[in-house]
Amino acid sequence: MGAGILVTLSNEYLKDIITEYTPYTTQGEVVQSLPCVSELNQNDIGIAVIDLDQNVYTAGTTDLSFSLQSASKVVSLMIALEDLGEEKVFQTVGMEPMGDFFNTISHLEADDVHRPFNPMVNAGAIAICSLIKGSSVEERFERIMTMLKSVLGHDDIHMNEDVYKAERRKGDRNRALAYYMSSTGSVALDPEEALDLYFRINSIEFQVRDLALLGLFFANGGKTIEGGEQLLHPDHLTTIEAIMMTSGMYNESGRFAVNVGFPCKSGISGGIFGAVPGRYGIGVIGPAINPKGNSVAGSKILERLSKDLGLNIFHPEAKE
Amino acid sequence: MGAGILVTLSNEYLKDIITEYTPYTTQGEVVQSLPCVSELNQNDIGIAVIDLDQNVYTAGTTDLSFSLQSASKVVSLMIALEDLGEEKVFQTVGMEPMGDFFNTISHLEADDVHRPFNPMVNAGAIAICSLIKGSSVEERFERIMTMLKSVLGHDDIHMNEDVYKAERRKGDRNRALAYYMSSTGSVALDPEEALDLYFRINSIEFQVRDLALLGLFFANGGKTIEGGEQLLHPDHLTTIEAIMMTSGMYNESGRFAVNVGFPCKSGISGGIFGAVPGRYGIGVIGPAINPKGNSVAGSKILERLSKDLGLNIFHPEAKE
Amino acid sequence: MGAGILVTLSNEYLKDIITEYTPYTTQGEVVQSLPCVSELNQNDIGIAVIDLDQNVYTAGTTDLSFSLQSASKVVSLMIALEDLGEEKVFQTVGMEPMGDFFNTISHLEADDVHRPFNPMVNAGAIAICSLIKGSSVEERFERIMTMLKSVLGHDDIHMNEDVYKAERRKGDRNRALAYYMSSTGSVALDPEEALDLYFRINSIEFQVRDLALLGLFFANGGKTIEGGEQLLHPDHLTTIEAIMMTSGMYNESGRFAVNVGFPCKSGISGGIFGAVPGRYGIGVIGPAINPKGNSVAGSKILERLSKDLGLNIFHPEAKE
Amino acid sequence: MGAGILVTLSNEYLKDIITEYTPYTTQGEVVQSLPCVSELNQNDIGIAVIDLDQNVYTAGTTDLSFSLQSASKVVSLMIALEDLGEEKVFQTVGMEPMGDFFNTISHLEADDVHRPFNPMVNAGAIAICSLIKGSSVEERFERIMTMLKSVLGHDDIHMNEDVYKAERRKGDRNRALAYYMSSTGSVALDPEEALDLYFRINSIEFQVRDLALLGLFFANGGKTIEGGEQLLHPDHLTTIEAIMMTSGMYNESGRFAVNVGFPCKSGISGGIFGAVPGRYGIGVIGPAINPKGNSVAGSKILERLSKDLGLNIFHPEAKE
Repeated sequence: MGAGILVTLSNEYLKDIITEYTPYTTQGEVVQSLPCVSELNQNDIGIAVIDLDQNVYTAGTTDLSFSLQSASKVVSLMIALEDLGEEKVFQTVGMEPMGDFFNTISHLEADDVHRPFNPMVNAGAIAICSLIKGSSVEERFERIMTMLKSVLGHDDIHMNEDVYKAERRKGDRNRALAYYMSSTGSVALDPEEALDLYFRINSIEFQVRDLALLGLFFANGGKTIEGGEQLLHPDHLTTIEAIMMTSGMYNESGRFAVNVGFPCKSGISGGIFGAVPGRYGIGVIGPAINPKGNSVAGSKILERLSKDLGLNIFHPEAKE
Repeated sequence: MGAGILVTLSNEYLKDIITEYTPYTTQGEVVQSLPCVSELNQNDIGIAVIDLDQNVYTAGTTDLSFSLQSASKVVSLMIALEDLGEEKVFQTVGMEPMGDFFNTISHLEADDVHRPFNPMVNAGAIAICSLIKGSSVEERFERIMTMLKSVLGHDDIHMNEDVYKAERRKGDRNRALAYYMSSTGSVALDPEEALDLYFRINSIEFQVRDLALLGLFFANGGKTIEGGEQLLHPDHLTTIEAIMMTSGMYNESGRFAVNVGFPCKSGISGGIFGAVPGRYGIGVIGPAINPKGNSVAGSKILERLSKDLGLNIFHPEAKE
Repeated sequence: MGAGILVTLSNEYLKDIITEYTPYTTQGEVVQSLPCVSELNQNDIGIAVIDLDQNVYTAGTTDLSFSLQSASKVVSLMIALEDLGEEKVFQTVGMEPMGDFFNTISHLEADDVHRPFNPMVNAGAIAICSLIKGSSVEERFERIMTMLKSVLGHDDIHMNEDVYKAERRKGDRNRALAYYMSSTGSVALDPEEALDLYFRINSIEFQVRDLALLGLFFANGGKTIEGGEQLLHPDHLTTIEAIMMTSGMYNESGRFAVNVGFPCKSGISGGIFGAVPGRYGIGVIGPAINPKGNSVAGSKILERLSKDLGLNIFHPEAKE
Repeated sequence: MGAGILVTLSNEYLKDIITEYTPYTTQGEVVQSLPCVSELNQNDIGIAVIDLDQNVYTAGTTDLSFSLQSASKVVSLMIALEDLGEEKVFQTVGMEPMGDFFNTISHLEADDVHRPFNPMVNAGAIAICSLIKGSSVEERFERIMTMLKSVLGHDDIHMNEDVYKAERRKGDRNRALAYYMSSTGSVALDPEEALDLYFRINSIEFQVRDLALLGLFFANGGKTIEGGEQLLHPDHLTTIEAIMMTSGMYNESGRFAVNVGFPCKSGISGGIFGAVPGRYGIGVIGPAINPKGNSVAGSKILERLSKDLGLNIFHPEAKE
């Protein structure tokens, strides 16, 4: 009975997992509406797990570069909290799970205050982008990149210019969200500026190992893994992890809380990163996503890892 | 910096908290639509905390009897999971947070499958009641009471007949939910039978110490505190705690995940119980509730306890 | 150019129309959820047109008996207006078109006052049933039957007991609507009583000629065709016709206003009756209905008649 | 009993009406969000009625210039129908009443095809603007102005440049609607081009007599009052009048169909024009509007005129 730690983490173990779950890549679909993302390979599936001692375990497609997409929503929230504090941020954006698709606009109309439900849905992330300090979009973006490089512990990330251009060109739904918020006055934003920053951070390119490093930063309490610098206030880390748990996986966040049980955030390019407090940073990439926006194979693998390694924080034997 | 354990739990500490937070009881309102609940005292506020060694700490109004109301939704889910297993239960009811009021009916219409979002909203709990095994409503209710007595470790609970009658008489919204589900065929239920059981478990009377004992059972991994009998499979406990975290506090569940950070469930009579894994069961009662359905003073006190005692499971120092 | 009177009405003309439009009966579907209605023949299609001089023109299936279903909503509104007057009736039910399916419940929740949009949707008709005067459901129903017999000018109508039983047994959606309205207190009704009357009037059996007679009563300004007795106040007739025009054909009322252009009301058994002011009463029956609830062939035939006979009241040549 | 013609139309009669209904101007509010409109006088109320013999009757504030706002939606629909025919136009935009506010965006999301409900709501009118032929926005606008001058029978209208600039600057809600439609691909439009034309036609300035002339054109079957040139195909006129009847007065269209009973269209600057087929064109201006978007005093006056002059086309004595 129970789900204590059943296996020992190793490259071999991850390789077996990848082999076992590769068939799931046929179930989802690669997003076709966004150039660059649409060129990703349906069958790719890769994983990286890093522990607090910086042991790195990987398997599958690990050299694929992909744009962050919604995974960037965590990064923008991080900076906004450091810039403004919780009170101000959550006057602008709520912190409740939504129960609807990430790019819906109806919820802005339904809610009396016309405020986005949370920072993990598109409207919320656009609003968060409007809060980040800087004298220009370029400066704000540079601040984010600087922070992100410190978080990851390396400089080898950049924005993919082609993805950025495609985001701008194909961004009419996000434009609708931004202009709607501007029209109600609930979020005092310059729509085009907020969107420009939003499109930029969506276009930052990662590899699966970077996703794991991002997760590791959270698993390590908001401290850099080398040097141990506290880049994120522990209270803000707490807030972000709670929001990832309740809203990080679009309208499958409940299923993830139950079956995976540690804070995760996904993007429509098929990446997911997870933070197992005090233990691991985890990244998976599998571009074939389900209709809710989450990598099909990636989700299944995270469920399996959670069971095998006892990672579900709600499980009574998780802490043993 | 940080939110490690700042105070030592004691009756004195709780008494100070009650004194400090009593003014918040003026902010909410006692539900007037339900007799018995409407007779509760706006200014009452009480708390009980029990640790795994069965040390009991209390303050404020501790001898008040009140009906469980929505807190019973956790109990019915517990029995249904033991009766049928996760697969069958979650074919009938979803596990996603809803982002809307607990008694809304629109979500049943909006969703293609017309399935309740989760077992913590009224429609979901009614559907769950239809799953519980037994040859009659009376037998099903007896099974629940037997289980509940084992969980609490005492026999001193019963259903309040007046509340039950009031629930039946005033239950038109819940009737609408039940008949709507029956009409779509998404939940194969006998509306009046499911409602009868639902009204009964809502009418079980607790005192604040019982709420703490219920929380303690979860905090103890689904084992009875005396005897250590595993009454609830650890996987089911995991599932229930994850659902409480994402959906337990109506459409303030996100705020609770952030500010309290352990699984809780509230009821409109103003009770809330919480489970701090491996540490405490907590009960609060404060009949003055906010428009979302949660005790105003009770919520504030749980936030304070979480900070003072380092109970937020997402906080990096929570485990120290 | 234009749509003046292009043909002369005759049995031969109607017979040709029936022949031409019979193929459309294959496009819709006979409602399967309600016994008796489900036994209707998909391929049946019949029409009756009666002018103010009581000339009767018919073609196709004219001897079929079918339950009134939603066409009865006009009859209940008629009685309620005579019983209570416009002010009281429209305090209880609105008069706005809804833009959504006739049996939706969400609109009751969305609207601040929780009032049904209009008397032509199920919730509205149930609320209207709660207003009709009488010391018992039986007495209220008898009053309706008496009025209806006077309107039609004959006694040969009755309620189909089997349809009534089926309506009661299968009426969970309507029960949900009634209990929801009761729960908000917006409509002060006894749900089971209002539903009982609603199910009864839905179960009144008509033949297509009766539909035409009902339309003729409206076309004749609310006066009986024989005797010329003013059974319905002209102001109430005005109100009913305006509501039929804007809301009578479920969420195809706009299309009907454009393409047919005179007040009509449909039922899910496939009947539609129309009133061409000062000219004709029209009935069509075609049990194969579209997803919006309207007879496919029946709708097409009404569009054709409107064009051929110049019946669209919005057409500049309609009055010539 | 009844509502035949009770009074004779005269300047004196209209003057009495204005005096009687001026107190209603205190009930509504002048729209403050749009410069120029916000400068209109709350207490102004004016009326013009013109019959087919070109007798002009006026009273109250008749020299006020105001922007057309939503009344322009009828003009754009007129041109689009002439340009493309009904089939093409109604592939892009529906013809059903909506039951919700004119600037809602939720309906675009709720509907499976993401098509605006009808050409009288903002989203629909923006989509209609995208259909009008011309090699540039300027050319399209000139075509509309040329048509409109022919319709009115004079050249003395122009676009108010300040209103146009304000519309562009304050047009974020409309931008959201346009970008949303573009994002779903349901309407193949260039958002900024469609909006530019939409803002221009909203900014055309009228006086109350021009509203009456516009109504008169419809009352005269789509023929110019001088010369009798058929500028609008009778079938298109039929369609437009039916749509005005079911959707012309925002979500008070049902109430207008019942209480006024002839096709009308309103704008948020407080103007309403109506067409009484074969009899009158009517214009009213009263800048104080109700929350639904319709002039309070203007609505009341139209109800009164309808009763006094027997104008409700659903009334059995209207044609006598």
